Amino acid sequence: MADKYEQVLELAKRRGFLWNSFELYGGTAGFFDYGPLGAMLKRRVENIWRDIFVINEGYYEIEVPTIGIEDIFVASGHVGGFSDPLTECQKCHEAFRADHLVKDIIENPDTLSAEELTALMDKNNVKCPECGGKLGNAYEFNLMFKTSIGPGGKRMGYLRPETAQGMFVDFPRLLKFYRDHLPFGATQIGKAYRNEISPRQGVIRLREFTQAEAEIFIDPGNKTHPKFKDVADIVMNLYSQKGQASGETKNMSLGEAVKNGIIAHEFLAYCLAMTHKFLIRVGVSPEKMRFRQHMKDEMAHYAADCWDAEILSERFGWVEVVGIADRTDFDLKAHAKQSQKELSVYVAYDSPKKVQKFVVKPDMGLLGPMFKGKAKKVADALKALKSEELSGDVIEVTVDGEKININKNSVKFETITEEIHGENIIPHVIEPSFGIDRVTYSLLEHSYFEEEAKEKIEDEESAELRIVLRLPPEVAPVQAAVLPLLSRDELIKPGMEIVNKIRKAGILVAFDDSGTIGRRYRRNDEIGTPYSITIDYQTLEDKTVTIRDRDTMKQVRAPISDIENNVYDLIYRRKSFEDAGI
Amino acid sequence: MADKYEQVLELAKRRGFLWNSFELYGGTAGFFDYGPLGAMLKRRVENIWRDIFVINEGYYEIEVPTIGIEDIFVASGHVGGFSDPLTECQKCHEAFRADHLVKDIIENPDTLSAEELTALMDKNNVKCPECGGKLGNAYEFNLMFKTSIGPGGKRMGYLRPETAQGMFVDFPRLLKFYRDHLPFGATQIGKAYRNEISPRQGVIRLREFTQAEAEIFIDPGNKTHPKFKDVADIVMNLYSQKGQASGETKNMSLGEAVKNGIIAHEFLAYCLAMTHKFLIRVGVSPEKMRFRQHMKDEMAHYAADCWDAEILSERFGWVEVVGIADRTDFDLKAHAKQSQKELSVYVAYDSPKKVQKFVVKPDMGLLGPMFKGKAKKVADALKALKSEELSGDVIEVTVDGEKININKNSVKFETITEEIHGENIIPHVIEPSFGIDRVTYSLLEHSYFEEEAKEKIEDEESAELRIVLRLPPEVAPVQAAVLPLLSRDELIKPGMEIVNKIRKAGILVAFDDSGTIGRRYRRNDEIGTPYSITIDYQTLEDKTVTIRDRDTMKQVRAPISDIENNVYDLIYRRKSFEDAGI
Repeated sequence: MADKYEQVLELAKRRGFLWNSFELYGGTAGFFDYGPLGAMLKRRVENIWRDIFVINEGYYEIEVPTIGIEDIFVASGHVGGFSDPLTECQKCHEAFRADHLVKDIIENPDTLSAEELTALMDKNNVKCPECGGKLGNAYEFNLMFKTSIGPGGKRMGYLRPETAQGMFVDFPRLLKFYRDHLPFGATQIGKAYRNEISPRQGVIRLREFTQAEAEIFIDPGNKTHPKFKDVADIVMNLYSQKGQASGETKNMSLGEAVKNGIIAHEFLAYCLAMTHKFLIRVGVSPEKMRFRQHMKDEMAHYAADCWDAEILSERFGWVEVVGIADRTDFDLKAHAKQSQKELSVYVAYDSPKKVQKFVVKPDMGLLGPMFKGKAKKVADALKALKSEELSGDVIEVTVDGEKININKNSVKFETITEEIHGENIIPHVIEPSFGIDRVTYSLLEHSYFEEEAKEKIEDEESAELRIVLRLPPEVAPVQAAVLPLLSRDELIKPGMEIVNKIRKAGILVAFDDSGTIGRRYRRNDEIGTPYSITIDYQTLEDKTVTIRDRDTMKQVRAPISDIENNVYDLIYRRKSFEDAGI
Repeated sequence: MADKYEQVLELAKRRGFLWNSFELYGGTAGFFDYGPLGAMLKRRVENIWRDIFVINEGYYEIEVPTIGIEDIFVASGHVGGFSDPLTECQKCHEAFRADHLVKDIIENPDTLSAEELTALMDKNNVKCPECGGKLGNAYEFNLMFKTSIGPGGKRMGYLRPETAQGMFVDFPRLLKFYRDHLPFGATQIGKAYRNEISPRQGVIRLREFTQAEAEIFIDPGNKTHPKFKDVADIVMNLYSQKGQASGETKNMSLGEAVKNGIIAHEFLAYCLAMTHKFLIRVGVSPEKMRFRQHMKDEMAHYAADCWDAEILSERFGWVEVVGIADRTDFDLKAHAKQSQKELSVYVAYDSPKKVQKFVVKPDMGLLGPMFKGKAKKVADALKALKSEELSGDVIEVTVDGEKININKNSVKFETITEEIHGENIIPHVIEPSFGIDRVTYSLLEHSYFEEEAKEKIEDEESAELRIVLRLPPEVAPVQAAVLPLLSRDELIKPGMEIVNKIRKAGILVAFDDSGTIGRRYRRNDEIGTPYSITIDYQTLEDKTVTIRDRDTMKQVRAPISDIENNVYDLIYRRKSFEDAGI
């Protein structure tokens, strides 16, 4: 029997959600096309993300090129370390991930070096899975797509492996945009690339994919969140470091998790809450979602804490779809070093701090005539001395390699108290990073149902298996279908008028007059169209239509006059279906 | 004095619309970042395009990878012919477009071959514009960014030079999606790439840019458009082939233009109307827009007709921002040839056609016993004969090289009349192709004004130069600003409540309490925020606020209770500003 992935993909291909890319030319692994319905679904998922992160949190979106220059990825570490271990069959020349070939031999093969993997493969006599040939030594294969900018191959370009670097590189501009105040955040939704050695997991492992990332720059001395109280009571399925030791997930409120030190701080917990809200809103099943903390050895060395949102898929098990990390000051420091520019923020103290300061004041009236052209250098040398070096009657300084003795009368010094109002700090970065393709696939899988349908259509009780995508109305690609009961001009004409009214309200509506009404309901059920509007002969008499609800298959009668607002409110304003009827 | 481009770019950089990419690392020509306001502006432009082409015309959007495989671009001609002539200085090694270096010497340098350009440069002693060095021979430089998919460099990949090919490659899937009926269309908004030799025109000539393209597949025998009558009266500024001969643009209705054979057919004219509607709606000035027909020698050899929408820019002159072409069956034929698959549509005739058909019926009862195992081959050979070859008493056929004579009694034949209900045809393609970056820049330029502002603020008449972006409210990045008159808690608190109400309605609203109210109005004017909402002490008494209109600087008082709907209706539903007040 087909598993859920096959069922979903069959539907997805047949109805225009997902197609293998370049199918006309035989296809290439790691690339998928979004067909008409898939692209619309994905777009709606992205727009909900925007509504949460951009409109409501105020983290403005930016858009930078997908091609990046070498400096960026030297700084980020991708040139040096973004690789997978590759081994090639010496007979058939097929390439494999060396760590995948030994995963039944050793527990964490991804922690091994290429040399260790080679040794392990030799020892265990691992052969090519395709042809049984001898495998070559494993080596690190960089996963960035490379290209060259302009002619002559002089300037290397890389297709970005993540959108995040755009926000780091633009940090100085963003800081000005936000008028030098922390915290602030910027987001990006766009393509990222990973030149996989040999991707074999369909839509889960793509060479070109869409990320939605936020980089939120915060004061390292203040990781609270002003709106944390609004989310503190939200209970989530947490799979903490400790929980993973015993294999136990725990339902826990975010307030409790922060209080008990399970989640590092409020700001990170607030990001978990936003992620939770987003995933539920787009249609992921709450009971197939968990938040897993990275184990200490799996976390990047610079990270303060890191959680993945994982979604349960029947075929793939728990799949990471979001990563939420406190990356500390790693990224800004790396770019500051590479660019030789200061990437910091002046942060004012709540109240000025008093600091003791030792000040040396050379008497230029005496030193000037004595040292002439050298006087300034002598004075600078004096200013650099510490208090104990100034205690004798004669003070020695070295200027241009020459030792000079100076009478103590030529120098005054004192300890003063200064008020400091703030300091330059390097912000820490909180990064929620979403894999939009995986989210989109997951919600297709979670909303896919095959069920016995008992529906009364035209006085006949229909009972048959129906496929239905129970997508939330606001993500369904086709938001309404207009169906004349019969394909006759007197019903088609008012149908098309309704289509035009609804389109003007910005709602994607389909018109369908081919086949029985029952078949048309089924066609719309399986693509998740939440509302079907049927024009019948009563319509011609009283200017009303029926609206059918996809999930309950119930129908109400509603007037044509404000049908577009009625449908809009059903989709976007959580109007109840009963209230849509007369 | 700064020209308009410099003025617009100064504002764009300072306020976060457009930044040079990779500025932290010194930048690279041909790449621009959209900052927070620019990305939002661009997104709104794209969404208006979607509303017109996807929602209202029903041309579903798809999304295919930006990396394409070689077959695609062999078929499209990009591997062979997508190039510019390059010459390199032999002293400083700078690269130049050879045709640009001779543009003052000859009129249409882009029509010359690399050899002709080399000869011309030699003859005119053209030197390196940077260092005066000797230039090398011109040669064709392919403008696609190349990369390699997977390890080993075995599979070439190209960053797509246009989004269009995605729709052609997916033609078989799209045809099924649209249930085998013409016309249908698919669209794509996404990145495209062009590895320019040496881009020097800022945001006008990018190496990575965004296209919005529609490929509409129509019946070559029927290029009418069912909704043409809705647009026939629209008068547009047409610069036809004939007009260009005399340098004259002409205001003409589309109906007239089609009737007089100026625009090839209704379908193309309808696309011009959609383009016109889109450009006006996003904020391009109608008086700085024209539609220019390609001259015969500039049009692709396969194109039936082609028009560019051009926008007047102060620095760059008339800039092409949209191309609208009837590409006939060129693309589908090219991909059919390359893929060895049939790319056609079965089109049913309005009424069946009667065709004469000659039919041969071998008598198997006689042939079977006579030829045994060979009988079928003999029969097939007989069926392949023409009527004149069957006229004799003895009929000769050749089977497996052997000549066989057959008595005429073993074969019957007749001419019958058959009804044909339709045929397989290769659709023609109408392609409107939009350069979203150029459109976005153009509308910034067209909406940029510096003007003497006389505004009454807090009993003081302010008169100063103000910069204002007169963007249409639905494209303005920040849609509303909430401004407490003074930065005091009792005004900030209700201000933040209003911000939250408006955000929940999906509107991007900014809060600003720093500086004088006059200065805050100016800050919002120059980024095009259409409505500023001010909280004052009257607000605390009667729960009303003022709404200020960016363009007229008029103010009305409106209740807080439905402020979000009020603002929504102002932005999206063309509610008049006066009606927004109490």
